[in-house]
Amino acid sequence: MSNTRGAPGGGSGRNAFYAQSGGVTAVINATACGVIETARRHTDRIGKVFAGRNGILGALSEELIDTSRESPAAIAALRETPGGAFGSCRYKLAPPERDEREYARLMDVFRAHDIGYFFYNGGGDSQDTAHKVAELGAREGYPIQCIGIPKTVDNDLPLTDTCPGFGSVAKYVAVSIGEAALDVASMCETSTRVFILEVMGRHAGWIAAAAGLAQRKRGDAPHLILFPEVPFDQEDFLGRVSETVDRNGYCVIAASEGTRYADSRFLAEAGTRDAFGHTQLGGVAPVLAEIVNSSLGLKYHWAVADYLQRSARHIASGVDVEQAYAVGQAAVEFALAGKNAVMTSIVRTRDKPYEWHVGDAPLGRVANVERSMPKAYIRKDGYGITAAARRYLEPLIAGEAYPSYEKGLPRYVPLRNELARKKLQPWSA
Amino acid sequence: MSNTRGAPGGGSGRNAFYAQSGGVTAVINATACGVIETARRHTDRIGKVFAGRNGILGALSEELIDTSRESPAAIAALRETPGGAFGSCRYKLAPPERDEREYARLMDVFRAHDIGYFFYNGGGDSQDTAHKVAELGAREGYPIQCIGIPKTVDNDLPLTDTCPGFGSVAKYVAVSIGEAALDVASMCETSTRVFILEVMGRHAGWIAAAAGLAQRKRGDAPHLILFPEVPFDQEDFLGRVSETVDRNGYCVIAASEGTRYADSRFLAEAGTRDAFGHTQLGGVAPVLAEIVNSSLGLKYHWAVADYLQRSARHIASGVDVEQAYAVGQAAVEFALAGKNAVMTSIVRTRDKPYEWHVGDAPLGRVANVERSMPKAYIRKDGYGITAAARRYLEPLIAGEAYPSYEKGLPRYVPLRNELARKKLQPWSA
Repeated sequence: MSNTRGAPGGGSGRNAFYAQSGGVTAVINATACGVIETARRHTDRIGKVFAGRNGILGALSEELIDTSRESPAAIAALRETPGGAFGSCRYKLAPPERDEREYARLMDVFRAHDIGYFFYNGGGDSQDTAHKVAELGAREGYPIQCIGIPKTVDNDLPLTDTCPGFGSVAKYVAVSIGEAALDVASMCETSTRVFILEVMGRHAGWIAAAAGLAQRKRGDAPHLILFPEVPFDQEDFLGRVSETVDRNGYCVIAASEGTRYADSRFLAEAGTRDAFGHTQLGGVAPVLAEIVNSSLGLKYHWAVADYLQRSARHIASGVDVEQAYAVGQAAVEFALAGKNAVMTSIVRTRDKPYEWHVGDAPLGRVANVERSMPKAYIRKDGYGITAAARRYLEPLIAGEAYPSYEKGLPRYVPLRNELARKKLQPWSA
Repeated sequence: MSNTRGAPGGGSGRNAFYAQSGGVTAVINATACGVIETARRHTDRIGKVFAGRNGILGALSEELIDTSRESPAAIAALRETPGGAFGSCRYKLAPPERDEREYARLMDVFRAHDIGYFFYNGGGDSQDTAHKVAELGAREGYPIQCIGIPKTVDNDLPLTDTCPGFGSVAKYVAVSIGEAALDVASMCETSTRVFILEVMGRHAGWIAAAAGLAQRKRGDAPHLILFPEVPFDQEDFLGRVSETVDRNGYCVIAASEGTRYADSRFLAEAGTRDAFGHTQLGGVAPVLAEIVNSSLGLKYHWAVADYLQRSARHIASGVDVEQAYAVGQAAVEFALAGKNAVMTSIVRTRDKPYEWHVGDAPLGRVANVERSMPKAYIRKDGYGITAAARRYLEPLIAGEAYPSYEKGLPRYVPLRNELARKKLQPWSA
């Protein structure tokens, strides 16, 4: 039984473990908010919600953040706060068939803290981990319900309409390139002719495709989109850039960081070197700018949004925030309904108006399956999106969910993040 | 007398010429809105407002956009639309003492279209041009009232508390680096340790200083700010980065594009070369990242906001939008009050609560005077801002002025931008 002293959120049932995994997003804390607030509404069946400090590493090190020590206001503020409030990590457990020590340690920690619910909030690897924990629990006869909760700006999880986090990046990218395009359009007569915005998405062009939403009518920016799915043909690209500049006076380009040559080399690793001869890593935008400048002699500017795009809670998608909360809330409700080894998912039932509900998908079918972008979403010429892509993407950026502001800046509330008392020996891998 | 046929905004007085000059901002159209809406309230004394197509070039080429053909709704929408709605340009007229042809041409165009009011919306060069037009009008006995209207994200005009456009960039930069810092903080255990955001401001650190507003208590990001005013000392910088990473687990840096070595070489031109040996222009962030990586071996990420920061109307400062409109409105009212050869300016009368009104400054004292950032705004160690800087900057980012949205994106309305019939021979310089 869990200790509920001075615990607004500490109930009388078995405890829950929640962890954030992999790259964080503008809305992953909204999911945490959904998990914790829902658990607090079922104190008869759920004790405390422990959050792993820095994700699953917190479980291995027995660094369990006792969320029952956070005020309702602090938990509610999670809905408006980007980043990972408890810390996240890039760490994949060793497969139990090769080395079961990490999974065994998880079991020890779960036993020591009476963890009956395991909520793992992340991408493909995390769903795989949740699946393995479920299998191990069954094998060891330890009763635990494992629910995966989707999260990734890459939008690459299967069996869900979208992944919370993606919609907000999509909105940020579409809004930003649309605004920058108005700037470039008004200056192109005497200044910049070519503007390049680099966006995330190393393996799939979902985020680059979202930039296409800024194009409301033919001729609008972005004029060219570079997808990882389409081999980069320098000559063809340059031809289209100068054609676009001749026609419009300027050319705005959205380039995925994963843009690559036919031989699958990334442009970002095209071997740009600094003065000392070190290879310069990252940055497809400056490489493209250099190609444009040296071949066409056009004045250029480039931007790399990097983390700004996935942390931009100030321009988060209202739908995305709602879905992020909903998959967290449903994870707890599904667990209480006796479900196990499933991932909460978004089920789309209609495009216009967008209608969706939360469903569940067996972790066994989610784990390690990567969902790529349909070919039908990329225009035949390879430089833009189709009506089908727009039909899919548009609902995901709908609605604004502004955080509250104080002195001109968002009021992002930090948690106390107090650890529960350790009960086990220190862990060493 | 101006032709008022079918002209909702065409009055019976002499006509006005308005032009946008230099780099555009998120709020320069709010100034245009202030000029045009105010002129439309005085149709007894002001005829049409002609806007120069691509700034002053439109006057030389006699490409005058007849704003009277725009609906009140379209003009009102300017308040919410970034970029330069009529086009801007980077073009400085030749000094009349060296070559008077351009100024003479301006006079011809003004005479041909009965221009009695000259409103020039830009930075230092533009105020100088407005001043010279006023002098020329007087010399030639051509009655024209010349009012300069401040605009520049660089915040480098004298005799005004701030320059419309700056407050919104300041807000964008402070919000963005604060959000990215939450992302980095939650991942630093196993991922990125150093994050660098490059911001504008080649000659002065106003925008870099604004990033410092994100730091609400000691230890908050940004941990280091690099100003153009402070010579870059690589060893000292690296020492502070590793010290910060040791203390916090991560280090967030705001770097001005104008960051330079003691010998005044820009880091952005440190001679980074691409595979073909071409010098790679621009990008202080990747250069800093490479320095950090090669010397400290820390995992890094970097972002370059570039045009995103000065076009980000979606996160514009409420105070900035209000001031941008007010300096446009006052320009017309001052002209009607008989003023000439002045620039409208923001006069601060109180810090907390921020109180200001619009005043005027003689163009002769504004022209070509660059206002630099006070030394007292930079912390003694050179890597942060002082309380005095915060006191000055904080009011400028206050308030949100969200544009209206449609299908998840801001509703930025394009104008018809129809040209008035030409009356003169084509111009050739």
